[in-house]
Amino acid sequence: MGVLPDSVQKVIDAFEKLPGVGPKSAARMAYHFLRARNNDAINLANSLLTMDQNVVNCRDCFNVSETEVCSICDSPLRDTKQLCVVEDPLDVVAFENSGVYKGVYFVLGGVISPADGIGADELRFPELRMRVGNLTSKIRDHKSSGEMDVAVEFADNPTNKGCLELIIATNPNLEGEATAVYIQDLFRKEISEGTLHITRLAMGLPTGADLEYTDRLTLKRALEGRRAY
Amino acid sequence: MGVLPDSVQKVIDAFEKLPGVGPKSAARMAYHFLRARNNDAINLANSLLTMDQNVVNCRDCFNVSETEVCSICDSPLRDTKQLCVVEDPLDVVAFENSGVYKGVYFVLGGVISPADGIGADELRFPELRMRVGNLTSKIRDHKSSGEMDVAVEFADNPTNKGCLELIIATNPNLEGEATAVYIQDLFRKEISEGTLHITRLAMGLPTGADLEYTDRLTLKRALEGRRAY
Repeated sequence: MGVLPDSVQKVIDAFEKLPGVGPKSAARMAYHFLRARNNDAINLANSLLTMDQNVVNCRDCFNVSETEVCSICDSPLRDTKQLCVVEDPLDVVAFENSGVYKGVYFVLGGVISPADGIGADELRFPELRMRVGNLTSKIRDHKSSGEMDVAVEFADNPTNKGCLELIIATNPNLEGEATAVYIQDLFRKEISEGTLHITRLAMGLPTGADLEYTDRLTLKRALEGRRAY
Repeated sequence: MGVLPDSVQKVIDAFEKLPGVGPKSAARMAYHFLRARNNDAINLANSLLTMDQNVVNCRDCFNVSETEVCSICDSPLRDTKQLCVVEDPLDVVAFENSGVYKGVYFVLGGVISPADGIGADELRFPELRMRVGNLTSKIRDHKSSGEMDVAVEFADNPTNKGCLELIIATNPNLEGEATAVYIQDLFRKEISEGTLHITRLAMGLPTGADLEYTDRLTLKRALEGRRAY
């Protein structure tokens, strides 16, 4: 371009790589730092470097963490008989902020998406197998050790069958569904043996929805999933 | 929150300070770096630090620059009899990308906006006075030195009166208009002496506009500014 100093253009280019940032907003971001002339640019740079250095994937669930095992996997208060499979660390944040889930997670790292060139090999299915294996054997040991049946602790869980529950929480779109089917197939043996049962998040109307503007598929799913009062 | 590692939260906080970035997109940006696990985070950090170190304001026009005098002010090809006053460096980029302007610029650093607590003292009016003084005396010297009248060079400029033209290019909103009026007042003496004349960018219909959806004020301005074929 020539108009822009090289070092400014490089910042704009780096911002443009971010999701949802086009050339115009990237330029506005870069100039924000130049206009303000405070320490904002240095702060962002340093926090990026610190994050890059400190953050690892949790050994067990692959969520982002600053310790080898994340605070959720490490907590004695979490129900290790429920394993929620999500696509992304941000999905974990959504669940945690809602406060409605007390089990543990597994971050798959995406979904199967042939259109984006993401096959099953790109995702953490071997690690998921291992995680499921560890949790089911933990439940088995617990039972055979003669301690009070853990099922009592989680009596409020309607789907509790005394074995590990794998809750598939991929997004309700084509790729998410395909991935859910793939996971079910992956654990066919465990399901038939009764050491694992798989559930999927309910689909239907979101809170505050307007029937008039609801798409056909959502209506269909809401009808199929209707419940008695 | 506890859910998010500290170092991730700090990056999110830093992103949230950027214009047009809310908490959700800030989180998505931070996680983009964690998901990709390439050098994107380090690249952005380094380019921010380089920019912070290298970029200064041009001594003459206050545009961003990596040299004491920017490449526009330094160019012998620019018409120093036209001075375009803009709010921001990004406005310079817009003009330069259009390729329609060959004069020089002055970056005011904002507009008078009492609602945002920005008074005239916050803006570069003393520097603008100095810049106008320098350019007008340059024109005077040029004329008295008996060289070919510069007016010939810029004969295609319909508003060329052989003196410095100050083109006010603040945005066409309340604050931009108020600032334009302030600038006119600032140079009352020079205008009456004939060493400076002030113009304002035309207002009217933008290319591709639809009359049906054009607001009242734009229509009014388009009518007032109508021209003979």
